[in-house]
Amino acid sequence: MISLAELQRRIEQGNLSADAAIAQSLEAINEHEKSIGAFVCHEPNVRAQNAGPLRGIAVGIKDIMDTQDFPTEMGSPIYRGHRSRGDASVVMLLKQAGASIVGKTTTTAFASMDPTATLNPLNPGHTPGGSSSGSAAAVAAGMIPLALGTQTGGSVIRPASFCGVAAIKPSYRLLPTVGVKCYSWTLDTVGLFAAGVDDVARGLSAMTGRSELLLPPSILTPRIGIVTQDFAGAPEASGGEALRIATEAAERAGASVRALALPEIVGEAWHAHSIVQEFEAHQALAWEYRENYQAMAPLLRARLDESKGTTPAAYDEAMGISGRARHALAKVFEDVDVLLTLSAPGAAPKGLGSTGDARYNRLWTLMGVPCVNVPTLIAEGGLPVGVQVIARYGADAAALTAARFVEEALKGK
Amino acid sequence: MISLAELQRRIEQGNLSADAAIAQSLEAINEHEKSIGAFVCHEPNVRAQNAGPLRGIAVGIKDIMDTQDFPTEMGSPIYRGHRSRGDASVVMLLKQAGASIVGKTTTTAFASMDPTATLNPLNPGHTPGGSSSGSAAAVAAGMIPLALGTQTGGSVIRPASFCGVAAIKPSYRLLPTVGVKCYSWTLDTVGLFAAGVDDVARGLSAMTGRSELLLPPSILTPRIGIVTQDFAGAPEASGGEALRIATEAAERAGASVRALALPEIVGEAWHAHSIVQEFEAHQALAWEYRENYQAMAPLLRARLDESKGTTPAAYDEAMGISGRARHALAKVFEDVDVLLTLSAPGAAPKGLGSTGDARYNRLWTLMGVPCVNVPTLIAEGGLPVGVQVIARYGADAAALTAARFVEEALKGK
Repeated sequence: MISLAELQRRIEQGNLSADAAIAQSLEAINEHEKSIGAFVCHEPNVRAQNAGPLRGIAVGIKDIMDTQDFPTEMGSPIYRGHRSRGDASVVMLLKQAGASIVGKTTTTAFASMDPTATLNPLNPGHTPGGSSSGSAAAVAAGMIPLALGTQTGGSVIRPASFCGVAAIKPSYRLLPTVGVKCYSWTLDTVGLFAAGVDDVARGLSAMTGRSELLLPPSILTPRIGIVTQDFAGAPEASGGEALRIATEAAERAGASVRALALPEIVGEAWHAHSIVQEFEAHQALAWEYRENYQAMAPLLRARLDESKGTTPAAYDEAMGISGRARHALAKVFEDVDVLLTLSAPGAAPKGLGSTGDARYNRLWTLMGVPCVNVPTLIAEGGLPVGVQVIARYGADAAALTAARFVEEALKGK
Repeated sequence: MISLAELQRRIEQGNLSADAAIAQSLEAINEHEKSIGAFVCHEPNVRAQNAGPLRGIAVGIKDIMDTQDFPTEMGSPIYRGHRSRGDASVVMLLKQAGASIVGKTTTTAFASMDPTATLNPLNPGHTPGGSSSGSAAAVAAGMIPLALGTQTGGSVIRPASFCGVAAIKPSYRLLPTVGVKCYSWTLDTVGLFAAGVDDVARGLSAMTGRSELLLPPSILTPRIGIVTQDFAGAPEASGGEALRIATEAAERAGASVRALALPEIVGEAWHAHSIVQEFEAHQALAWEYRENYQAMAPLLRARLDESKGTTPAAYDEAMGISGRARHALAKVFEDVDVLLTLSAPGAAPKGLGSTGDARYNRLWTLMGVPCVNVPTLIAEGGLPVGVQVIARYGADAAALTAARFVEEALKGK
C-alpha cells in the first residue's frame, strides 16, 4: 500500500516532488485497476497542486459524492452520465488541503447493498465489502494513498476490515455531507480509508484543519473496554479471533483492558437503527424509488418494499431510543477511554453476491461516535480481519490515538 | 388569500373539482404575478392530481429546492439554467400527498441576504422579507394556498410576519432537507407558508402523514410564557405592540400568561448562532465561494469574507453552548406549553435594499424548536406584523394548536 505519511515526509524533505507522488498513484492504477475494478472513472492526466499538506496525494472519491470534474453516477443507471454543477464539501476540503482528485470509486447503488463488480485485492474470489467498495479496494491494492467513503450502516469500517486497510468513520458531522447523496440524514457519515492509522489521521486533520487530530509524539496507554455486541449475535471464528488477538496485544502493551457490558438501552438502539435508516431512506430516495422503480437495484428495492409500512410513530420511538442510548453510552466513557469491538463478523464472504454484514457497525453509526478500523489478522485465503476502536462522540483524536496504540501493539505481538 | 382548508372542504364535499382549484391559483398568478414577482418560473398548464389530501392544491417551491420539472437556480447566476435530475424529498412528499407543483418562488442567493426583486403584496414599497421572499409573497398575494421555504436564521417566520401570512418552521428535521441547497446543516429547516394556522397544519400533516398535526376539534387554553429576547436588543414600536396585543388577547381568551426570563445559556446560544451558521456555510458553499467568487451575491460574499477566520475551536465552543442551551430550554417547557415572542423587530423595512433583520428568529432555529407565525396587527402603510408561538422540540402539534388559539383570540379582540 502507499502510505500517505511516507509520501508527506518525502515531499516535505524534498526527496519526492508532488507530481512524482501523483505519478506513482497513476502508475499503480494503470497496473492494478484492470484486475480490481475499484474505479468508475479516473483521470490519467491529473496533476499535483503545489501547496497544502495533501499536495501530491491522489484521492479516490466514492461515486455518491458530487464532483465537478467527473460524473457522479451513484452506482445506479438512474444517474448514468449525471454531472453535478459543483463539488461536494468534502471534495472541496480535500482540494483546499492540496490533494488531487484522481477519480470516482465504485459504490453499491445509493450506498446500499447491491454489490459492485469490484474484487477484493487480497483475494479476488471475495467481496471487498460495501458500500464503499471501490475506496477500500483502491487503497488496499496500493493504487492510491487516500479515499473517501460513507457509512450509514457499516459501509466504511466493514470494507476496511475486509480489505485490510485503516479507516475512520468520524464523529457525526465532523465532515459535512453536503453534496453527498443522502440515504439517511441521521446516519450518513463521510469516512476515510488509508494504509495505516497515522495516514488516516493525517488525512482527516488536513481536511478539517484540526491539528489536534494528528497523532501525538508519544501515546499514553489507553483504558480499553472490550465489547462483544451480543445483541448483534455471535461472530464467526475469525472475527472472534481478531478481537481476542487485539485485546491480548493491547494488554501486553500495557493498556488497562476489561470486558464491558453495555447498558440495555444501547442494545435497543441496535434494533432501532434499521427503523431510522429505512424510514429516512423512503424520503431521501423518494424520487428514485417512486419514479424510477424498475431501474432501482434489486436488493435495495426489496429492502424499501419491505419497510414501506414503517410509521412516523415507529420512527419517533426509534429516535427516542437512540437519544437515550447516546446518553447512556456517554456515561460508559466515564470509565474507559475507548471501546474495542468487532469490525465485522469475520473475513470477507466468498463471491460477489453480498457485501457482507453490517451488524457490528450499525449501532455505532447511530450513536454518532468515531470508529477506527485496525487490521488485525490474516485469515484463511489471505483475507484480513480487523477490529474497531471507538471513542466518545467528538473524541476523534482519542479514537485515532488508541487505534494507533492497538496497531503498534499488534506489530509487537 | 386562498385558504387551503377551504379548498380541501369544497373539494371533499364535491363543490369544487381539484382541477378548478388549481385553475383558481393559475388565474390568480396570471393576475398578480406581474406586479409582485414572486416566481422565478411557473407552469401555466399544471394539472391537478386525482387523489390525496392535497389534490387541487397549487404549491410554490423555494428555488433552492430540487425539482425535476423546473430549473433550480438558487437565486444565483452560478446556477443559471441548472436542472436537477430528481425532486427534493419535500417536493416528493407534496406530490405523494396529491399537491401540484405550480412553480419555483424567488429566493435570495443561496437563501442568504441579498434581496430579490419581489415586492411586498401589502405595500409594494417594502420588502417581503427573505430569504423565502417569493413563497411568502405568493401566498400573501392570494396566488397560491401553500408554499415551501427554508429558515437558517429567520427566513420563514420573518417574511411571514412581513407579509401577514401564517407559517411554520417545524422542529429540526421533521421535514427532510435532502435535495435542498445547504447553507448550514445544523440550522437549515424547511417550512410552510399558508393563509392561516389551520391551513399550515393541514399542509404539514399531509406532507408528513402525521394526523396528530391537524388541529383538534376543541382547543385547550395554553399556558403561555412571554419572552422578549432582550439579548437580541429592543424591538421597534410596531413589534412591541404586536407582542402586547397578542399577549392581551390570549389572556382575555383565558390563557395563563406570564413573563419568562430565559436561562442565561440560552442568550449565549443566540450569540453562538452566527458562528455555527457561517462556519458551516464556508464548507457548504465552498465550491461556490472559492471557485465562483466574482459571481457570488455581494452581501453573502461580504459575510463569508468577514467570517473566513472562524476556527474549528470557536465552532466547537458554539456547538457546545447550543447543546447546553437546548437542554436548558427543554426545562423551561416544564412550566409552560408554549412561548410567545416577536417574529420580527417590526413591520417590513422600506425598499428592497434589505430583507430585514433575523435577530428574533435565529435562536429558535438553533434550538430546533417549532415556531409558528401568527399575523397580529396592521401597522402604518398597511404593513402586517406577526408574533411567533414556540413549543418544545418535537411538539409541533402543540405549537400549531396554541398558535390557533392566539389567532382566534386576536379575532375576538
